[in-house]
Amino acid sequence: MKYFTTVNDITDSGGLVKAALALKKNPFAHSHLGKNKTLGLIFLNPSLRTRLSTQKAARMLGMDVVIMNMDKESWAIEWKDDVIMNGSTVEHIKDAAAVLGMYCDIIGIRCFASLSDRGQDYSEHLLVQLMRYCQVPVVSLESATLHPLQSLADAITIAEHQRKGIRPKVVLTWAPHIKPLPQAVANSFSEWMLRLDTDVTIACPEGYDLCEDYTRGAKLTHNQEEALKDADFIYVKNWSAYEPYGAMPEVKTNWMLTEEKYRLSAQAHIMHCLPVRRNLELSSALIDHPNSLVKHQAENRLYAAMVVLKTMLETVRKTETSTIEVQEIEQV
Amino acid sequence: MKYFTTVNDITDSGGLVKAALALKKNPFAHSHLGKNKTLGLIFLNPSLRTRLSTQKAARMLGMDVVIMNMDKESWAIEWKDDVIMNGSTVEHIKDAAAVLGMYCDIIGIRCFASLSDRGQDYSEHLLVQLMRYCQVPVVSLESATLHPLQSLADAITIAEHQRKGIRPKVVLTWAPHIKPLPQAVANSFSEWMLRLDTDVTIACPEGYDLCEDYTRGAKLTHNQEEALKDADFIYVKNWSAYEPYGAMPEVKTNWMLTEEKYRLSAQAHIMHCLPVRRNLELSSALIDHPNSLVKHQAENRLYAAMVVLKTMLETVRKTETSTIEVQEIEQV
Amino acid sequence: MKYFTTVNDITDSGGLVKAALALKKNPFAHSHLGKNKTLGLIFLNPSLRTRLSTQKAARMLGMDVVIMNMDKESWAIEWKDDVIMNGSTVEHIKDAAAVLGMYCDIIGIRCFASLSDRGQDYSEHLLVQLMRYCQVPVVSLESATLHPLQSLADAITIAEHQRKGIRPKVVLTWAPHIKPLPQAVANSFSEWMLRLDTDVTIACPEGYDLCEDYTRGAKLTHNQEEALKDADFIYVKNWSAYEPYGAMPEVKTNWMLTEEKYRLSAQAHIMHCLPVRRNLELSSALIDHPNSLVKHQAENRLYAAMVVLKTMLETVRKTETSTIEVQEIEQV
Repeated sequence: MKYFTTVNDITDSGGLVKAALALKKNPFAHSHLGKNKTLGLIFLNPSLRTRLSTQKAARMLGMDVVIMNMDKESWAIEWKDDVIMNGSTVEHIKDAAAVLGMYCDIIGIRCFASLSDRGQDYSEHLLVQLMRYCQVPVVSLESATLHPLQSLADAITIAEHQRKGIRPKVVLTWAPHIKPLPQAVANSFSEWMLRLDTDVTIACPEGYDLCEDYTRGAKLTHNQEEALKDADFIYVKNWSAYEPYGAMPEVKTNWMLTEEKYRLSAQAHIMHCLPVRRNLELSSALIDHPNSLVKHQAENRLYAAMVVLKTMLETVRKTETSTIEVQEIEQV
Repeated sequence: MKYFTTVNDITDSGGLVKAALALKKNPFAHSHLGKNKTLGLIFLNPSLRTRLSTQKAARMLGMDVVIMNMDKESWAIEWKDDVIMNGSTVEHIKDAAAVLGMYCDIIGIRCFASLSDRGQDYSEHLLVQLMRYCQVPVVSLESATLHPLQSLADAITIAEHQRKGIRPKVVLTWAPHIKPLPQAVANSFSEWMLRLDTDVTIACPEGYDLCEDYTRGAKLTHNQEEALKDADFIYVKNWSAYEPYGAMPEVKTNWMLTEEKYRLSAQAHIMHCLPVRRNLELSSALIDHPNSLVKHQAENRLYAAMVVLKTMLETVRKTETSTIEVQEIEQV
Repeated sequence: MKYFTTVNDITDSGGLVKAALALKKNPFAHSHLGKNKTLGLIFLNPSLRTRLSTQKAARMLGMDVVIMNMDKESWAIEWKDDVIMNGSTVEHIKDAAAVLGMYCDIIGIRCFASLSDRGQDYSEHLLVQLMRYCQVPVVSLESATLHPLQSLADAITIAEHQRKGIRPKVVLTWAPHIKPLPQAVANSFSEWMLRLDTDVTIACPEGYDLCEDYTRGAKLTHNQEEALKDADFIYVKNWSAYEPYGAMPEVKTNWMLTEEKYRLSAQAHIMHCLPVRRNLELSSALIDHPNSLVKHQAENRLYAAMVVLKTMLETVRKTETSTIEVQEIEQV
């Protein structure tokens, strides 16, 4: 695995989930795999779970970790090609990425959506520029349109809690918020659930339909109550409008998940990626409900990061071995 | 030891000092104790000594360390229960702490006093919320009212320098400053010295009396010169008023410790927790005086942190062993 | 080696370059040398290459690394002696450095020029104060007047690319910029190249002559085209005026290195320390040119840092051994 930025980077997503569950049972079994390897983590945005879980996952694999809070600790980066750099940016991504690729064996980057330029956000401009120039494996720590480590952790959590032999009904339901948020978690959850063997329903108010590229195959509805009926897993998340991009069209009914609405489900498991605004997105009581999986999701971020890094390290090791073999052959 | 937030968390404070001195002689003797264990350090306030010494102590015990500069690198945290989170806070401590507790085996937190709401500060609202929700051992890296790692380092330093068989006279003397500081170091030094076998005198100007809960048993005076007489250890520190909370009532005489005043003592050892404002709190000459212990205090921060982490790790290991034994018994 | 702040700290600069090239071939051969040793990195200014390469070099030697972003994570430091600290600074460098020296075995510091007070900058006030008070080996991560790790990396890169038996013509040529930059990289490159066996030419517009102390022995010219003729290595770099200090006197001709000007050289290798402003300092095409060494320079930062830290660690180990021997003799 060279890149981990979308479910499409994975050939066997179910196998990856199983491999993560195996790691969870025996987390220190590969503590030498990452020896003498460095993971570089680049943050352009704040992070708690991702920062800590990825760091810890790498350390559990024996890797060294270096962290760069870009813009705070380093120089302002120029992301556009072919410009005369006589403004505020100090270093071009082409040069910064090449250097990072020299010092790190794997790079993780967090780069949120701007929510101002949809074309640029949905082209994953920043992520693609890094991948283009750094020449080493790259793992997304949440990009403009997707959050694959979160979705993998969600998939692991669902695998642990679904009833055997039954295709679960998974409902992604929009939640209120006070400011426009990216669509990344919602897009990502949808594309992963559709790839895995689940029955996906996405409920949101009019004006909040997600980009079709990520939801094709899901049941789409503007009726929250209908969607929640018989749900096995309810995933609560806010996002802003895809069209007009980043807008927050007025919603006349209350979409917060309450205990009353929850009763429509089949005693569903309650999910949220965190951070969550209590009593705004969903009621405090539901986050702390016996059926809530939010802590499990957070814990599984560790094993999601670990299985991805492990797979990448194995690819790196394989490349090294074949390079050494080639060298040996050449020397003969 | 599950918590280290006050001298009251310790049953045998003298024994802890002795254990720290033993570690100082052989600091790498336990370099495998922390293997595969992670210390999370959360900073809500700046830190130099605490940040470096705690990190180094943990590494000397073989632990991995992750650092989180909250508010700079992560989300704004909501500390109050039962609120509708429609303001500027993004994540509730209940969720953040639970997640931190999943990724870390021990958590350290630095959370200074606000100096605006005494009730909240003296209830140790932030520290208590973290302890309540994270479910792992917590060590205070200075809280609103106390600074136990500093006081333990001070106790170690005094143990190294006191004359055998003589109960030392320890004087805590207030010093001038340009802005209101918390009472944490003073409260903490007082409660530790009272617990250990020392003769404690606290001298401060009128209006600066500390909260009785921490000073009961000490001689209290507003006469600095009298207090300094025959002192074996002089601890210099500024703090703001407890009543009215956070105020800086005018002081008409100069309380800076000078060489002239120092001569009243019994060639006392001079102590300060650092950072110190030279020539404002005490004269430069006294900080650099042959009898000054400020560097020893700073060095002993290492062994204070180390003995606390070691004790906590032993508790964690013991719990793991008994859990494993219970599992084994259940499996039989 | 106790200090690495200028080429004058080195007795055998050619030997150091060779040692670095040996390390590059076998980077993990000394991975136990730094066991139980801590490198403290202090940043007063932003950093990408230096931060990552020094960290990685230390880890490859088995050292532990602690990082302190001063002013962001710690207290404001007072650098002047004999002041009454009743202003905004919270801790004196005398105390902070002593403490850092207690927790760290080697300290690295980045402290850029102010460009406002030449006397203070060229006295290396900050660096000298740290060295004076911390009592452990200190490596400059770029100071007010010099950037020795960069110059060592440059020297390593030139050693790798120069033709055998031919003394290379090395040209340092000034480049345009939008704001005044320190003279550190230029001073440093000049003093290292003059020490090594190269033919040094420095070209800059009138008004931009560097301080003679660093350029004595080099050919100095204000004619860029003449300078470039027959160059084997072209090093491009902006700097502000030494006199009047920090000024940017108007330059009427365009000093940006273009492909047209490049053709004057002997198919020279193109060098820049990065970060570089593309199409302002030199054309994008030249940075990406087959003869460009900028990525090699960045990669060699690793081995520059590594050879310096290795040499310092060997000094530290030797001191420890002789101290132990002295103790053993005393005990006999």
